[in-house]
Amino acid sequence: MKLPSFIAADVALVERELDRIVPPEATRPVDLHRAMRYTLLAPSKRVRAVLVLQAARVCGSDERALPAAAAVELIHASSLILDDLPALDNAPLRRGRPSNHVAHGEAMALMAAFALFNLAFGTIARAYDAPTAQRLTGLMSDAVGSDGLIGGEVEDVLAADRAVSFDTLELIHRCKTGALFVGAATAGAVTAGAEPDQVSALAAYAKNLGLAFQIVDDLLDVEQSSEALGKTAGKDAAQQKITFPAVYGLEASHRMAEDERAGAHAALEIFGSRADRLRDLADLIVRRKA
Amino acid sequence: MKLPSFIAADVALVERELDRIVPPEATRPVDLHRAMRYTLLAPSKRVRAVLVLQAARVCGSDERALPAAAAVELIHASSLILDDLPALDNAPLRRGRPSNHVAHGEAMALMAAFALFNLAFGTIARAYDAPTAQRLTGLMSDAVGSDGLIGGEVEDVLAADRAVSFDTLELIHRCKTGALFVGAATAGAVTAGAEPDQVSALAAYAKNLGLAFQIVDDLLDVEQSSEALGKTAGKDAAQQKITFPAVYGLEASHRMAEDERAGAHAALEIFGSRADRLRDLADLIVRRKA
Repeated sequence: MKLPSFIAADVALVERELDRIVPPEATRPVDLHRAMRYTLLAPSKRVRAVLVLQAARVCGSDERALPAAAAVELIHASSLILDDLPALDNAPLRRGRPSNHVAHGEAMALMAAFALFNLAFGTIARAYDAPTAQRLTGLMSDAVGSDGLIGGEVEDVLAADRAVSFDTLELIHRCKTGALFVGAATAGAVTAGAEPDQVSALAAYAKNLGLAFQIVDDLLDVEQSSEALGKTAGKDAAQQKITFPAVYGLEASHRMAEDERAGAHAALEIFGSRADRLRDLADLIVRRKA
Repeated sequence: MKLPSFIAADVALVERELDRIVPPEATRPVDLHRAMRYTLLAPSKRVRAVLVLQAARVCGSDERALPAAAAVELIHASSLILDDLPALDNAPLRRGRPSNHVAHGEAMALMAAFALFNLAFGTIARAYDAPTAQRLTGLMSDAVGSDGLIGGEVEDVLAADRAVSFDTLELIHRCKTGALFVGAATAGAVTAGAEPDQVSALAAYAKNLGLAFQIVDDLLDVEQSSEALGKTAGKDAAQQKITFPAVYGLEASHRMAEDERAGAHAALEIFGSRADRLRDLADLIVRRKA
């Protein structure tokens, strides 16, 4: 599917910023910087970064959100490296290439994951005025912590060993994917000096969007090939992971993704037609094929 | 050796603060919080936290430095968990108990390390006014990054596979241990609103202190038992690590530690007798037996 030009333009902006922020391969320690760049700069949809930028734009800001968008991508790339490690998903493929630990060894992959994560906070501290930096740091830390990305990852690891309820499935995805989506949208709004009702609307939108993204991710793992995905297809079933299709079936899962898409649209009401790009983003996420 | 009462008092303060900051075991995800608390709250000298507090006090502050001291301990605990993993040092013992991954499994140890690290930044964002929080976030990120803890760790991993120069040995330790010592002292000074010359003096002191600490650490690995250390003695030689005793011999290494102690004392001159506790701290670090 061809991407709308606004997304392609945002992706280009973000990739230039990431390339600028992450240390060049030529500087010491070369092996670390190579491993960091390997996952961070690999081909990616940059959904979270686009979300940061578009959330800022709907609140009237220009490119002031760019370092925050980069910070969110740094955190996301770090979490992908971690996720793929032998002790976790033990995934051989990511973003169409061997996973970081396969290409660079486990020690360097671990260091790269920590360094990317650390760089996210350094980027925020350097790029913004003090009150904005403080608020973004708090936001990102909350999005990653016990009620966020790490909490969700832990519940996911624990869920693999036992029968879990539907509530747990939703909890996992609300934390593991949703928290960083909500953090991204909120961060964009904060850099734009948004009003509280705008922040709330964007957080609600991002919560729907995150759940839609995860349901579709689960569906693609069943319905698509590894080549199309750039990561190993069918691994959820192979690892007996709890997923939306496994729990609800394919048809109901597709319907749930549609419901989340509708919820995302509804959350944007206060912005009127100014939020059309965010609506397009929700449509693209639900209808994507990879 | 009996600790001076000022250190025991600082350690008690910090441990109460850490216990307050890290989520209780009873909250979800229980397994994550248990693994976080396991390493963070295990018996420790809390050298870095004491350094934060005493650097703040010599600049005239009260307990305003406490959250920064806790943040430094959170980062340090995270780095210990990481260091001990099979892909890195593969160390079975830490702080007198089985290492985190031995006790909690590798997946949970990884998550706990990330969560502790993340909590350090969240703690800073919550505890301080915006300009102080911003400065501390930048300081900590620099202390951890490519020229700091992670950079040093990477050089250390790489050094194990090849012959390295004396310069590399110093580079490793300046980054791996020194950067967080310097970050700790600077953080303490910043929370106290210190003057630039005070910040510089404390950074110079901490640089000497960090190197002294590392030289003594290398010596203890040779000269002490695992029981005394609470971690595996003799592992540097077993892993053919590059260390000060391996490169310079025992006697010269003891002399170098003394030189760093003297340098640390000299750096404190501008503070006069107000810095006596920092001098005591340097003496204790060099003369410790574990």
